[in-house]
Amino acid sequence: MFDEIFRNLRDQKPLIHSITNYVTANDCANMLLACGASAIMADDAQEVEEIIAACQGLCLNMGTPSARRLEAMVLAGRRANALGHPVVLDPVGVGASRLRREGARQLLGQVRFAVIRGNLSEVKTLATGCLDGHGVDAADRVTVENQREIIGFAKTLAQSTGAVIAVTGETDIVADSQRAYCIHNGHPMMARVTGTGCQLSVLTAAFVTANPAHPLEAAAAAAAAMGLAGEIAYSRLSPMDGNAGYRNGMIDAMFRLTPEDLERGARYEVR
Amino acid sequence: MFDEIFRNLRDQKPLIHSITNYVTANDCANMLLACGASAIMADDAQEVEEIIAACQGLCLNMGTPSARRLEAMVLAGRRANALGHPVVLDPVGVGASRLRREGARQLLGQVRFAVIRGNLSEVKTLATGCLDGHGVDAADRVTVENQREIIGFAKTLAQSTGAVIAVTGETDIVADSQRAYCIHNGHPMMARVTGTGCQLSVLTAAFVTANPAHPLEAAAAAAAAMGLAGEIAYSRLSPMDGNAGYRNGMIDAMFRLTPEDLERGARYEVR
Amino acid sequence: MFDEIFRNLRDQKPLIHSITNYVTANDCANMLLACGASAIMADDAQEVEEIIAACQGLCLNMGTPSARRLEAMVLAGRRANALGHPVVLDPVGVGASRLRREGARQLLGQVRFAVIRGNLSEVKTLATGCLDGHGVDAADRVTVENQREIIGFAKTLAQSTGAVIAVTGETDIVADSQRAYCIHNGHPMMARVTGTGCQLSVLTAAFVTANPAHPLEAAAAAAAAMGLAGEIAYSRLSPMDGNAGYRNGMIDAMFRLTPEDLERGARYEVR
Repeated sequence: MFDEIFRNLRDQKPLIHSITNYVTANDCANMLLACGASAIMADDAQEVEEIIAACQGLCLNMGTPSARRLEAMVLAGRRANALGHPVVLDPVGVGASRLRREGARQLLGQVRFAVIRGNLSEVKTLATGCLDGHGVDAADRVTVENQREIIGFAKTLAQSTGAVIAVTGETDIVADSQRAYCIHNGHPMMARVTGTGCQLSVLTAAFVTANPAHPLEAAAAAAAAMGLAGEIAYSRLSPMDGNAGYRNGMIDAMFRLTPEDLERGARYEVR
Repeated sequence: MFDEIFRNLRDQKPLIHSITNYVTANDCANMLLACGASAIMADDAQEVEEIIAACQGLCLNMGTPSARRLEAMVLAGRRANALGHPVVLDPVGVGASRLRREGARQLLGQVRFAVIRGNLSEVKTLATGCLDGHGVDAADRVTVENQREIIGFAKTLAQSTGAVIAVTGETDIVADSQRAYCIHNGHPMMARVTGTGCQLSVLTAAFVTANPAHPLEAAAAAAAAMGLAGEIAYSRLSPMDGNAGYRNGMIDAMFRLTPEDLERGARYEVR
Repeated sequence: MFDEIFRNLRDQKPLIHSITNYVTANDCANMLLACGASAIMADDAQEVEEIIAACQGLCLNMGTPSARRLEAMVLAGRRANALGHPVVLDPVGVGASRLRREGARQLLGQVRFAVIRGNLSEVKTLATGCLDGHGVDAADRVTVENQREIIGFAKTLAQSTGAVIAVTGETDIVADSQRAYCIHNGHPMMARVTGTGCQLSVLTAAFVTANPAHPLEAAAAAAAAMGLAGEIAYSRLSPMDGNAGYRNGMIDAMFRLTPEDLERGARYEVR
């Protein structure tokens, strides 16, 4: 069904509002355009409620945070909720500072998220440091070995937050309270490009916005599409290409990816 | 005469100061370097008057606005006017929020612009929402069909603002109060790359700065050069390239573009 | 010995915290990943002391400055000093405004730098405008002709600041109070890409962080590696490539560069 989900995105071309860090904003915008969506970035509290009202979906990314930007995130998120627009949270490096932890706590308290996407370390910090949930003993990376444990953790967090939880790693775990997609697409070289996680988060916002009745499947399809783009781009690298060529190659692969490519190339099981 | 205009730019290598959004700032800087100019970005009210004094031209881009950045734009614009340096305005998404409309209104009231460049929707918002001008019934995109109407609108707005008006679309209309260049260069895929409008605005600043006595022709040459770069880059795309490769290709094409290429490749009529 | 220095970097994969301008932040992050390091950008005074504590090295870049960002730089720099983490200063355009000169003066007064890297004009401004040192009559670019004079100036500034001084130009001069490396790698086209200086500064932070006992040699190795990447990327340009392809090519060349390549390709003498 990933083909249908992706086709909806290509057909609807949703306009996605991102409040995001300045390091990867350009790649996020071009990745949105590559998948068929449109992009607007705006981060000032004075205007974000108007901006989100003209868009169909929202992505909140906590990289390069400031009190000013976090305030804008809360305003935009609450307005998106009121309008029924899906909101995705990317808690970039949430464990790295009190500013980020407090910001995430405030966001989780005031905004309902359709999807929360991060690496295992970030999602664990959300669960334990911002939501006062029970600790999790898993390592900081999703591996084949600890997959079962992470699935249980993700389902529990999905239950308590009402959001689909997407945990990125060697395997991506995308779960609601009932089911988890375990997605095996991707390539280790993706970690050598800055902002591949940020790009997956805006993709997730685009996929979910075009498929609001199926946030779990849409978030899973986004993760599979991003991973597949990483695989395709890797297969096209010459021996002289490095992470800059690879960065461009992933966006290009997403631009050329068809719904049929995604259906055929997605490798996952549902648990 | 576009060849002579472009030759002046390549010879003079003007230093252009941009106050611009963080999403496309890097591509704007590299596009300035590609066309032969140099780039400096600085957006703090405490320093922009000194920065513009060391430059030859200024581009004010309203993407990712804030009260702080808008204040810096007014200061830099007024100082540029006092120094006789050309100023270009790119009213990015000016209709999207009160912050942008009020910011544009303030800029138009306090700064004289050599060129105002935007898409039709943005320029219409300036005319009706910020300048209290008469409405325009044209659609939001310049097409072959509504070209005549847009030309009249652009000439009227040029008359009332004293600026050359550049309206980007399928056809680019670049007009002063007397004449309009209708430029047919470009490729639809340019809309799939974030910031091609921003890049055209900094290019326009560079072209006009090197040809201060001919702002109409210089702005028209910039639009033709950008469109030509889009055509050349498209012709070089492989079946696997997408919008990231295309983004790089446009900057590369501008880097390699000669005055003779521009003269030969520009497709326009004057109305 | 540059091979051993580079091998240490590849082995240790240090996490480098950058407080940097938004124009070139993405390229700086990808260049750090290309050389084998990891990158985090964070610039808010509320969190930078926590961020640097989780990292191993720090790069402070004065592009697009603001009072807010300069305050964060002082806090991060002082904390890095307390933790024994190397700090690199890139005084971008320090002569261009009072804000930058005062910011640099404050930084130099409160933070001990392992390396200060800039072009000749910037480093001269630091010496005379921010440190009240004696003027230098050299031209604003390092050339073969004025090399001897620049070496003396750099050694004196190294003596008074306690930092390695890296002056970029046709020849790069990297000096402590006793010795100077004169590095002849690089290509003029590097000046046509925005942020190659910024990228060298983060590279320098990565090289020095992985070789804390040898800041002079590490900074020299970083300059040679960057120049070599510029040479390799230039050799791979097609006649249609321009500065965008070249930008990517330099990062890709760094990604593929081996310690042996660096040892073999570095061209320098010690004075």
